[in-house]
Amino acid sequence: MEEKKARVVIVGAGFAGLKAAQSLAKEPVEVTVVDRRNYHLFQPLLYQVATSGLAPEEISYPVRAVFRKQKNTRFRLAEVERVDLAGKCLVTNAGIIEYDYLILAAGGETNYFGMESVAKNGFGLKDVDEAIHIRNHILRMFEMAAQEKDPDIQRAMLTFMVVGGGPTGVECAGALSELIRLVLTKDYPQLNFNKVRVLLLEAADRLLAGMPPELSDITAKTLWNRQVEVRLDAAVSDFDGQRVVLKGGEIIPSRTLIWAAGVKASRLVDTLGVKQGSARRAVVMATLQLPEQPEVFVIGDAACFDVDGRPLPMIAPVGIQQAAVAAQNITALIQGKPLKNFVYHDKGSLATIGRKAAVGRIGKWKFSGFFAWILWLFVHLILLVGFRNRLLVLINWAWEYISYDRAVRLIIPK
Amino acid sequence: MEEKKARVVIVGAGFAGLKAAQSLAKEPVEVTVVDRRNYHLFQPLLYQVATSGLAPEEISYPVRAVFRKQKNTRFRLAEVERVDLAGKCLVTNAGIIEYDYLILAAGGETNYFGMESVAKNGFGLKDVDEAIHIRNHILRMFEMAAQEKDPDIQRAMLTFMVVGGGPTGVECAGALSELIRLVLTKDYPQLNFNKVRVLLLEAADRLLAGMPPELSDITAKTLWNRQVEVRLDAAVSDFDGQRVVLKGGEIIPSRTLIWAAGVKASRLVDTLGVKQGSARRAVVMATLQLPEQPEVFVIGDAACFDVDGRPLPMIAPVGIQQAAVAAQNITALIQGKPLKNFVYHDKGSLATIGRKAAVGRIGKWKFSGFFAWILWLFVHLILLVGFRNRLLVLINWAWEYISYDRAVRLIIPK
Repeated sequence: MEEKKARVVIVGAGFAGLKAAQSLAKEPVEVTVVDRRNYHLFQPLLYQVATSGLAPEEISYPVRAVFRKQKNTRFRLAEVERVDLAGKCLVTNAGIIEYDYLILAAGGETNYFGMESVAKNGFGLKDVDEAIHIRNHILRMFEMAAQEKDPDIQRAMLTFMVVGGGPTGVECAGALSELIRLVLTKDYPQLNFNKVRVLLLEAADRLLAGMPPELSDITAKTLWNRQVEVRLDAAVSDFDGQRVVLKGGEIIPSRTLIWAAGVKASRLVDTLGVKQGSARRAVVMATLQLPEQPEVFVIGDAACFDVDGRPLPMIAPVGIQQAAVAAQNITALIQGKPLKNFVYHDKGSLATIGRKAAVGRIGKWKFSGFFAWILWLFVHLILLVGFRNRLLVLINWAWEYISYDRAVRLIIPK
Repeated sequence: MEEKKARVVIVGAGFAGLKAAQSLAKEPVEVTVVDRRNYHLFQPLLYQVATSGLAPEEISYPVRAVFRKQKNTRFRLAEVERVDLAGKCLVTNAGIIEYDYLILAAGGETNYFGMESVAKNGFGLKDVDEAIHIRNHILRMFEMAAQEKDPDIQRAMLTFMVVGGGPTGVECAGALSELIRLVLTKDYPQLNFNKVRVLLLEAADRLLAGMPPELSDITAKTLWNRQVEVRLDAAVSDFDGQRVVLKGGEIIPSRTLIWAAGVKASRLVDTLGVKQGSARRAVVMATLQLPEQPEVFVIGDAACFDVDGRPLPMIAPVGIQQAAVAAQNITALIQGKPLKNFVYHDKGSLATIGRKAAVGRIGKWKFSGFFAWILWLFVHLILLVGFRNRLLVLINWAWEYISYDRAVRLIIPK
């Protein structure tokens, strides 16, 4: 056993998976990263693809390029069908992959909470193809509305619903409103833009539940100023592609419902057959191991890690911090040393609402407005993988800021 | 008739269509541009999308953005099903569009010369989705080959055929070879790249038939130096997705056939019911009008315009020059003035083979190598629509030049 290197398999090339692999770069192990996509996607900016601000290629980075210089790491393009804990292997569409240690960083997927009509007719916003779908659809609605004679049908085409008042919903609604008010008004001079509605629905009584209430209020006010109708305590019960039905009985004719109201762990977690917490997440020990399988670590959106009786949120910083600890603990296991417990360090959070407007919290310090926006831009540029992507995104943002334009207004058919 | 402005309808937002509309900007007419896509595509760089060099968004530009400041011009997103010459209208999937004058700049499509197996299993390279298909497929072949045990299957996966020795085929084969030799060799350190083959097939006895023979020879030599197998007098007779059969009987196992061997006019030309020249093109008079319909002009790839008994080639400069004359002639018709005959001015041509290598001809002056390459880069940047696109393409090219990288190596599923 001493001469043969331990095989560490990491499922997922998201934030957590990449960080885990990078943390093992100098360890005497053989790392295999498995993902069904050949690129790492910078999900926090995916809504800008959906709203014509960025090209998908600018926020995606080939996984093989990440690990070119990391000699102990290989990539395999494969869709994992299930984890065989007893057989210590993954069953994939490209064959069996055996492991000595497994880091499951399989991420999350859209949670429609069992509402089939919304899952079928609404738009999720978790992957590149979904974002391009949304972009195509929004632009097509404007093209169709420009030619539509019936005023009721036209109004339905121009009513855009974003559901979910978390950061994704807030950022998406803000960006969509900007696309419409600053850009599309110039593209469709014949169209009456008073008929356009952008609604942001949130089931709780405030936006951005992870932020202090003052920032929730500032966010709602800013969105209203930018002509986004913010509806709190409002939940969707049905959407047939033509009409959105709210829980209270209100009916809003609309062709567009973007669902940013929930995430749950990847379906891969179900194949583990272990205890699950909320949102399908696998319950892990303080060391991030599965209770019965010391060789299996679950991190990021796939893991349910309780702090003071409440699970940590499904956000990138949690996954990234867990990845470093999981990697350290695998090294410790190999060396027979004691494992480390995971402790989450909340560094704060940021959400942008649009041009010169964002809100943020660092520790107990709260801020909003232009400074928060600049900080948001800066942090997101830094976190993007790859110098070229950073440069292209920066140029796009500068271009949009100076020209009040969104250049990627392309309907590229499937 | 004096107070009501004449309705000029332009079908197609390619090079010819855009130029025609822009030439009518200051005339007292109502211009409607109709296209099935909402963007103008810079086709000369499409092969760089197929070979992971550029994002499709960087070579596409929204048609509405082109005409924002042109007050007499409107855009309609519609697929034209047929032209009704007698009724002076277009039948589209978005209703009837009537015209007083029509400029048909509907462009061309891939010509498989009746070979159904190639049309079905090969890849065309005329539109964005085809380019993304090729990109996805090439990268997927490498991912599959990296996991393939059978050496024969692996070799077939790594054999790439480009058919057609015109500029598109030459540029595509050169770029594909570069992607493989400079970039993918770093991505797949375990793969034996001696098994990779890129073939360029041309049915005639030299490449770039539009160039002087010396430049054809230089092009072939340069491609060989870059490990492209150039086959002249070689024509494909069948491709079932697994094996390419050549006319002489040779069989080459391959999963990838990129077809750049022919273009014919849009199927819309068939609906005119007029006399056709080669490649389905509508035969036009010296004024670019249809012989029986003085109000209908056909330009660009859709038109067959003979000079000294030979039709002009289907290239952008012909269409752009014709667009200006068609626009002038419509103004002349309205004012009752005599029409102008079209005269083509051949400004020369350029084709790039790859890094620091291109060939070109201006008048009788022939050149090749680094200077031709710089000129090619410069000319293509200038011709791109939109400052942002120019900047992004320039940065990508600079990035690729310095880093020997192709950043857009993403398999984005349909």
